[in-house]
Amino acid sequence: MKDKNRQSQIPLPTIRRYPIYLRAIKAKVAGGEFYISSAVLAEELGFDPVLSRKDLAMVGIPGKPRRGYPAGELCEAISHALGWDIPTEAAIVGIGSLGRALLGYNGFEEQNLSIATAFDSNPAIIAQHVHGVKVRPMEELSAIIKRFKIKIGIITVPAIHAQECCDQLVAAGVEAIWNFAPIQLSTPKSVTVQNVDLAQSLAVLSHSINYSKS
Amino acid sequence: MKDKNRQSQIPLPTIRRYPIYLRAIKAKVAGGEFYISSAVLAEELGFDPVLSRKDLAMVGIPGKPRRGYPAGELCEAISHALGWDIPTEAAIVGIGSLGRALLGYNGFEEQNLSIATAFDSNPAIIAQHVHGVKVRPMEELSAIIKRFKIKIGIITVPAIHAQECCDQLVAAGVEAIWNFAPIQLSTPKSVTVQNVDLAQSLAVLSHSINYSKS
Repeated sequence: MKDKNRQSQIPLPTIRRYPIYLRAIKAKVAGGEFYISSAVLAEELGFDPVLSRKDLAMVGIPGKPRRGYPAGELCEAISHALGWDIPTEAAIVGIGSLGRALLGYNGFEEQNLSIATAFDSNPAIIAQHVHGVKVRPMEELSAIIKRFKIKIGIITVPAIHAQECCDQLVAAGVEAIWNFAPIQLSTPKSVTVQNVDLAQSLAVLSHSINYSKS
Repeated sequence: MKDKNRQSQIPLPTIRRYPIYLRAIKAKVAGGEFYISSAVLAEELGFDPVLSRKDLAMVGIPGKPRRGYPAGELCEAISHALGWDIPTEAAIVGIGSLGRALLGYNGFEEQNLSIATAFDSNPAIIAQHVHGVKVRPMEELSAIIKRFKIKIGIITVPAIHAQECCDQLVAAGVEAIWNFAPIQLSTPKSVTVQNVDLAQSLAVLSHSINYSKS
């Protein structure tokens, strides 16, 4: 449990930066580099060097003075901190255009995530296969999530149905919700929620093109 | 220019919260409410009430003591601050599964955003219509963005091609980039970039299910 305790101490902003480091390190490894310093990474990624030094120190592998971290070990340690070294299965609810895109997206392989099962309430698409995954009726959600011990629920339903789907996923035992519906979900504290709200980033863009100071 | 100056003072975290307020206020208006207080909104949305008071004060309309803000005016003022009261056109580059999903997503109507034109380098899909939008070759990107004065470029190409697409969009005159490719883009300071990096939010989820303290 020592490892688990240490990993649980890593702050969320650091966790959010780890995928960015990981990509940069992998690109360097592919380019033939064996050692990587936090200072070089910080400069390349536009991060504060002090911040990057702390971020990388948290994965708990020793760096070498002047040379930096052994690149392969650093990748493994970051993947481990992210939980990406073991396969994870997710269930997706809502097979509209966004749900289909996520099912067809092959960018999750690096993260060892597979969307193992899909649910929708629309009888017209139930039993269809979307990118190899069979769409199941909502009535089967609870039993399947329990049986396969699925821990991540992905919500891509319209906002008006999102809380209800979330409640079903939580009741069935998921520990984390990835919410693409534009609504704030209520969940027990033990359930981690990450929102991908396209309207929020669009807000920054449309504000800037209309009112930019430059 | 007085309005533009005032709007440009609104900090980005406030801008990112405005879509969340806007949805909550619209739901209340639909439910028959005419006045809305920042304290009620803050409690409903889980925000600090002091923060919400400041956020809403920045749109520059007067609230009434004990009653709050007139709901219709507040909606209009927030939409105006976001630049959502006037139509905006965007161009999308990369018509893979994510590009198609965004073209088919009807959630941008509220934001007055239309994806007016689409580009891809794959000859097999050029001239196809995807959700009513014709896919054009990359060679036409510059001329079309200039002619229609398109201000937002959406990048949904693989990471390896993203910087090149970004450079072409910026050279053609877009002022804002919505980047879905998992890479940090280099742009001139005058260009606003918003990244939607699915790996970053997935990182938080997979870390939490593996190392949660509870």
